[in-house]
Amino acid sequence: MKLASLKHGRDGRLVVVTADLTRATDAFFIAPSLQAALDDWDRVAPRLADLAAQLELGSVPSFRFHEHDCASPLPRAFQWADGSAYVNHVELVRKARGAEMPASFWTDPLMYQGGSDAFLGPRDPIPLASEDHGADLEGEVAVIVGDVAMGASREVAAAAIRLVMLVNDVSLRNLIPAELGKGFGFFQSKPASAFSPVAVTPDELGTAWDGGKVRLPLLTFLNGRPFGRADAGSDMTFDFPALIMHAARTRALSAGSIIGSGTVSNKGADGGPGRPIGEGGLGYSCIAEQRVVETITGGAPKTNFLKIGDVVRIEMKDAKGHSIFGAIEQQVAPHA
Amino acid sequence: MKLASLKHGRDGRLVVVTADLTRATDAFFIAPSLQAALDDWDRVAPRLADLAAQLELGSVPSFRFHEHDCASPLPRAFQWADGSAYVNHVELVRKARGAEMPASFWTDPLMYQGGSDAFLGPRDPIPLASEDHGADLEGEVAVIVGDVAMGASREVAAAAIRLVMLVNDVSLRNLIPAELGKGFGFFQSKPASAFSPVAVTPDELGTAWDGGKVRLPLLTFLNGRPFGRADAGSDMTFDFPALIMHAARTRALSAGSIIGSGTVSNKGADGGPGRPIGEGGLGYSCIAEQRVVETITGGAPKTNFLKIGDVVRIEMKDAKGHSIFGAIEQQVAPHA
Repeated sequence: MKLASLKHGRDGRLVVVTADLTRATDAFFIAPSLQAALDDWDRVAPRLADLAAQLELGSVPSFRFHEHDCASPLPRAFQWADGSAYVNHVELVRKARGAEMPASFWTDPLMYQGGSDAFLGPRDPIPLASEDHGADLEGEVAVIVGDVAMGASREVAAAAIRLVMLVNDVSLRNLIPAELGKGFGFFQSKPASAFSPVAVTPDELGTAWDGGKVRLPLLTFLNGRPFGRADAGSDMTFDFPALIMHAARTRALSAGSIIGSGTVSNKGADGGPGRPIGEGGLGYSCIAEQRVVETITGGAPKTNFLKIGDVVRIEMKDAKGHSIFGAIEQQVAPHA
Repeated sequence: MKLASLKHGRDGRLVVVTADLTRATDAFFIAPSLQAALDDWDRVAPRLADLAAQLELGSVPSFRFHEHDCASPLPRAFQWADGSAYVNHVELVRKARGAEMPASFWTDPLMYQGGSDAFLGPRDPIPLASEDHGADLEGEVAVIVGDVAMGASREVAAAAIRLVMLVNDVSLRNLIPAELGKGFGFFQSKPASAFSPVAVTPDELGTAWDGGKVRLPLLTFLNGRPFGRADAGSDMTFDFPALIMHAARTRALSAGSIIGSGTVSNKGADGGPGRPIGEGGLGYSCIAEQRVVETITGGAPKTNFLKIGDVVRIEMKDAKGHSIFGAIEQQVAPHA
């Protein structure tokens, strides 16, 4: 089934959406919010699934589904833990600043604790206080989990995956070096993220879901032009069960925790950093990576970070070309 | 007023507690949980204050208040952002490992994003998978804020402070170097924190609250013996409004966000690292700091990190010796 949270109060109003994203029906009589559904998933999920089946049959009242009416599926969450599972991305970004990447990065996942108290909606503007901050998109896949015990096994971690969605993990690149240099990780350099209009159960992905990752290209666009189509199923060194295990090693995770993949990033066919879409490559899921490749190949970056007015779009389509999650589409706006 | 969340479901049951912490009365007919109260504070707070006044007068039904029935005031929160405002602590810990501290640390706050999806209760055991992790207490003060706009001024930040409480920000010291070395900040090295049984409005602190910090000693105990009584009002380089401004620089903060002070730490009278309680000093609010001082003065640490069975207690008393927040008291327990 596909679930969305229409903008309403702090936690949104839960709706079930048709597989083709054209119609929706209210689910608040089953659970007032997606968080409430996740809190009591074993009891609630079968009822939501029944409603979804009735919605597809046209046997319940429904209304036109508009992606721009959506908040993020969890408008606020109790946890947003973002991995960096496409280690190729990390290696590239480090290479550009002349830093070696420890070999352990291929075996021990990188993960940071993100802010989760106020996500942007998938069509909300990205408020930017200054273009000097170097705003960037980061196109990622994320899962929402149920309760996970501390020290959970891979099997337990995999079974805890409830929903899959996309993320734009907005980053302020020019604030990152100084902030990471302080040693306490990201804070100001990671402003509010936005998630796709719709979160889907893994079964909605069919064979594109292999139990640990989504085997489909993540489509990113900049000002309407294709920017990336990296395959989320390739080069994911740590799949979602591995990321969940990492997050739960020393503490339990509560239902509704969101675990992110990090920027989707593929190696080129030659094992190198790949080529931009304009040159026939798969492109990139963030501007930083394209700038890195420009630096490596041409000595300096050519592509600018996001300016006021720029529009970012992130989407994923199934084998037949239908949008699975709806699109994140955000314009960068000046912060008053 | 003083508020607590009795253990009940995921978000606790909101109660109002007498100033002397002896009796409580249900507040769930006003707001089912503390988060719900914070979500609608301007409307709810006056009603809770009325109830608190009636409770003190004995004009509403009440029951004996037991601290061990409490969850953390917010059993789960949408944000836990912990500063390191007592820069003396940072300087000491760095000195012990031979690392210079940048001068900017005195002007630009350190802050990390902590996990907030599942806090421990104030009397819950601390589950420890291995004593080799080097578990430590960190005694801190924290505030809960209302909504704070992105880029908020100092005045706005100060006015957003709703409640004050204490924290045990449990740290796994031996996991920290490798984790910080990866550059993404703390994750596995910061397991679930516990907060004091009671959260209080700043007015409950009287003249001990100066609008930005709590001018009282933070009392820590290890296995029943006094370990620290550092003054939370001294050597706090960044007060709470400064920490809130830092957190809100590039994104809004939602009601219910918790902002922590970091380990309370005083310089000695001679400007040095101070002395242990056993030697007539103010002691420390974490074991790491005492170990640092032992290393500086004697060449090696003598005090062990927490072992299974050790008991940590954190409390704060008013000028008359009455406990303000109740006590955090946690025993380290093996994780099954």
